Amino acid sequence: MNKAFFGLVAVGLPLSIIGTIFHWRSTILFIIYCVTIIALASYMGRATESLSIVAGPRIGGLLNATFGNAVELIIAIFALKEGLISVVLASLTGSVLGNLLLVAGLSFFLGGLKFKRQSFNIFDARHNSGLLIFAVIVAFVIPEIFSMSLTEEKTMVFSIGIGIILIILYLAALFFKLVTHRGVYQSQKESVESDEEEVPEWGKWKAITVLGLATLAVAYVSENLVHTFEEVGEAFGWSELFIGVIIVAIVGNAAEHASAIIMAVKNKMDVAVEIAIGSTLQVAMFVAPLLVLISLLFPVSMPLVFTIPELVTMVSAVLLMVVISNDGESNWFEGGILLAAYFIIGIGFYLL
Amino acid sequence: MNKAFFGLVAVGLPLSIIGTIFHWRSTILFIIYCVTIIALASYMGRATESLSIVAGPRIGGLLNATFGNAVELIIAIFALKEGLISVVLASLTGSVLGNLLLVAGLSFFLGGLKFKRQSFNIFDARHNSGLLIFAVIVAFVIPEIFSMSLTEEKTMVFSIGIGIILIILYLAALFFKLVTHRGVYQSQKESVESDEEEVPEWGKWKAITVLGLATLAVAYVSENLVHTFEEVGEAFGWSELFIGVIIVAIVGNAAEHASAIIMAVKNKMDVAVEIAIGSTLQVAMFVAPLLVLISLLFPVSMPLVFTIPELVTMVSAVLLMVVISNDGESNWFEGGILLAAYFIIGIGFYLL
Amino acid sequence: MNKAFFGLVAVGLPLSIIGTIFHWRSTILFIIYCVTIIALASYMGRATESLSIVAGPRIGGLLNATFGNAVELIIAIFALKEGLISVVLASLTGSVLGNLLLVAGLSFFLGGLKFKRQSFNIFDARHNSGLLIFAVIVAFVIPEIFSMSLTEEKTMVFSIGIGIILIILYLAALFFKLVTHRGVYQSQKESVESDEEEVPEWGKWKAITVLGLATLAVAYVSENLVHTFEEVGEAFGWSELFIGVIIVAIVGNAAEHASAIIMAVKNKMDVAVEIAIGSTLQVAMFVAPLLVLISLLFPVSMPLVFTIPELVTMVSAVLLMVVISNDGESNWFEGGILLAAYFIIGIGFYLL
Repeated sequence: MNKAFFGLVAVGLPLSIIGTIFHWRSTILFIIYCVTIIALASYMGRATESLSIVAGPRIGGLLNATFGNAVELIIAIFALKEGLISVVLASLTGSVLGNLLLVAGLSFFLGGLKFKRQSFNIFDARHNSGLLIFAVIVAFVIPEIFSMSLTEEKTMVFSIGIGIILIILYLAALFFKLVTHRGVYQSQKESVESDEEEVPEWGKWKAITVLGLATLAVAYVSENLVHTFEEVGEAFGWSELFIGVIIVAIVGNAAEHASAIIMAVKNKMDVAVEIAIGSTLQVAMFVAPLLVLISLLFPVSMPLVFTIPELVTMVSAVLLMVVISNDGESNWFEGGILLAAYFIIGIGFYLL
Repeated sequence: MNKAFFGLVAVGLPLSIIGTIFHWRSTILFIIYCVTIIALASYMGRATESLSIVAGPRIGGLLNATFGNAVELIIAIFALKEGLISVVLASLTGSVLGNLLLVAGLSFFLGGLKFKRQSFNIFDARHNSGLLIFAVIVAFVIPEIFSMSLTEEKTMVFSIGIGIILIILYLAALFFKLVTHRGVYQSQKESVESDEEEVPEWGKWKAITVLGLATLAVAYVSENLVHTFEEVGEAFGWSELFIGVIIVAIVGNAAEHASAIIMAVKNKMDVAVEIAIGSTLQVAMFVAPLLVLISLLFPVSMPLVFTIPELVTMVSAVLLMVVISNDGESNWFEGGILLAAYFIIGIGFYLL
Repeated sequence: MNKAFFGLVAVGLPLSIIGTIFHWRSTILFIIYCVTIIALASYMGRATESLSIVAGPRIGGLLNATFGNAVELIIAIFALKEGLISVVLASLTGSVLGNLLLVAGLSFFLGGLKFKRQSFNIFDARHNSGLLIFAVIVAFVIPEIFSMSLTEEKTMVFSIGIGIILIILYLAALFFKLVTHRGVYQSQKESVESDEEEVPEWGKWKAITVLGLATLAVAYVSENLVHTFEEVGEAFGWSELFIGVIIVAIVGNAAEHASAIIMAVKNKMDVAVEIAIGSTLQVAMFVAPLLVLISLLFPVSMPLVFTIPELVTMVSAVLLMVVISNDGESNWFEGGILLAAYFIIGIGFYLL
């Protein structure tokens, strides 16, 4: 797996640079960029992982929680810079949907094909359910409803207020998980497992160097990727919404997809669920509000106002996940339900 | 009970035929048709039951899952043929509401008057909760929201796509329940109970004959029933919506109502809940999408687009049932909540 | 605490009377009225408490369930008399939000700072969840959606019907809790605790006298309070909606706030949750429908039709509470989620 990603970077990055300089056709560039970003993302993931182990569980948790969705953040910042507000909101929606329905769905489905019943920590699942309802229903639906009767300026003020509250609550959630209630809700079995010494793949400085270089490369490719959206949309008959919700989200989350599924097939459902739902919460409670605040630096600022189809699909996905994860168990059919929901939503955004 | 139904068929069917030929008043015919269909439905139910026992649990489960709502399907097909799209959607809504609120409500209430606390399989309840959220919130709400920004043609494409996904997931649910996970979530007590040899009421050929004849008779009466809707609506001051949601749904589901309540009073809550929620899922995941596909054969095709009041009431009913059934227990008061919700919704559709 | 309230009444009530007579500035009067009502409410609470103990658990439960939100009821009746329908609906919304998010949030948060994990009766929590979904989603959302297609007259008929059903179900819930299922869902520990002899603070007649006098005083001050809303709104830049949702709700529920938090810090989470959620249900299922019926006596009658922002925030709060209370446990972070939701909603109504 790692060798394949090495190859992809070794080929993709030079091609990206050459192609950009010589103005190859947008559709070809689009594919090269996407593949390169996916491969680079795997390096960022491994570097973050190594740093987390070196830094110990608390700082490590913080690192994971900050860099876990760095790729999406970088792509989104370049889209913001181009004023593509609706693409950014669509890609946030796509991350939420992709993680909750596609990543978790594939994990449950493929894991369930191998194991009849798989279980995960029920306390974490319920803790996450509360946060999902908060982030998506309280913090996303309410501004959209209120914005209908608010001026644009007031909507922006409301968005900033919600953004700050979301980031504070996200930090509080980390504090809760890593400091005040660390291990409180772990079962005996788990706490034994977590005693195993983890060995970092790379040393501290190598990890920092890899993380830095990969981030720079992702930034370079992302900036160019964003410029291809318009022509690619025309070529394939895709709307900006579809590119944001489905394509950007899959590219931005490919690393999570791979690791969650690998964990599920190894019957480590705790980790698989943590990746899928944890990543959703990171996007909704950290990346999204951060982008609202960052957008203030650009000419066009981004309010936290999704479209109705985006909200309805996110709310459906959240309710589905809350009900399905509520018993702390999964099987192939629960994965099937999530995947079916993803297909329906994908068709919807394609037609829109 | 069976004798009463025999009497009703013996009187109702000839009266239906004579009344139709001599063009009796619509309101009288409407009542005769309704009673006859209810009585015939009990024959279809008994024949399906007998066939299921003969055929063994797997094919039997499939038979039950296919013929369980045959009456509603037949009435709906004749309404489709007449182009009464809104009556069909209303009767699907009514089936969902009737099963979730009226059937389950009466079962919980009457069962609860006799037994202080009744319990049912919590795994099944949670499995069903996931499907209810999927079918009603993902598969019904999303097309309605997206249809607001789609052309009629694209809405129909979306409806067909959702319909196919729903039917595939419904079949997967049967495969899960009858093949891969049969008995996996059963308690010890239940698996002993289910070892009891069940004796079919009728032999294979008698059951097939009864099923065939009853189906033909239901089809004949249903076709005529559909023609009375307009005049009956005018006579009683009922809207088409009210006829569909309340009247057709009660007639089409009368058999389920009776058996669920009988099971509840015998403290077999597993069966009662299975009838109520299983029947809801069958309507939402099999009958509804099948009707979308069948409608393509008729001049006016039916998109899976309910009205807002239909969706809001179905979503409310689903959320109520998910929360109430979540603990695997029931009592008279939980039945009371469901019935109160049904009354409120009934008044609403009456006034609409 | 009690001495402080005595002092506030001893100073506040004369000031209220003098200020009213001499037409002091509205903003000053508004503050005096609010403080006086909060202090008087504590007397009403203590008198009701004493009477409940004297009357035994059944009649006592009924008393608590009737007089528990007497202050809000009185303020609302005077607002109805002035035709301030939207203020009344806003204050009902505010009570629901305040109890579910602010009272429960502070209880979970402050209790959780002292105790790592706190638990409460899971049966009561689930029983209450069903009622919350019923009251807020079925009984509040449905009339608002249907009212869009109904005449004003029919909307009022629908509101009255829902109101009667709500009150009947509320009485049935009391019957269930105090008569048919009293103690059925209590743990061993709790039933021992509840065997402790409770001693009323005041005798029967003293309690009745205090309750009567405090009610009269609250009525007097409330009538004057309602008249200050317009000027106070102008002075502080608050909309009627904000005054109703945030200010009136905090004043009307101050007593509940105090007692719930005290109980939480004493680790009596059962009582704290019962106050917060029980009070919400009382407002939604008893005070709100009673006000609909009382409004028929006034020139302008009040339909049970909230605005969309009111409904969306109430539904969000209910879903959040249902998911968070579902496991029968709390900690400081769950309190933090509820408080964060309250802040977001507060900002929203302030900007509206």
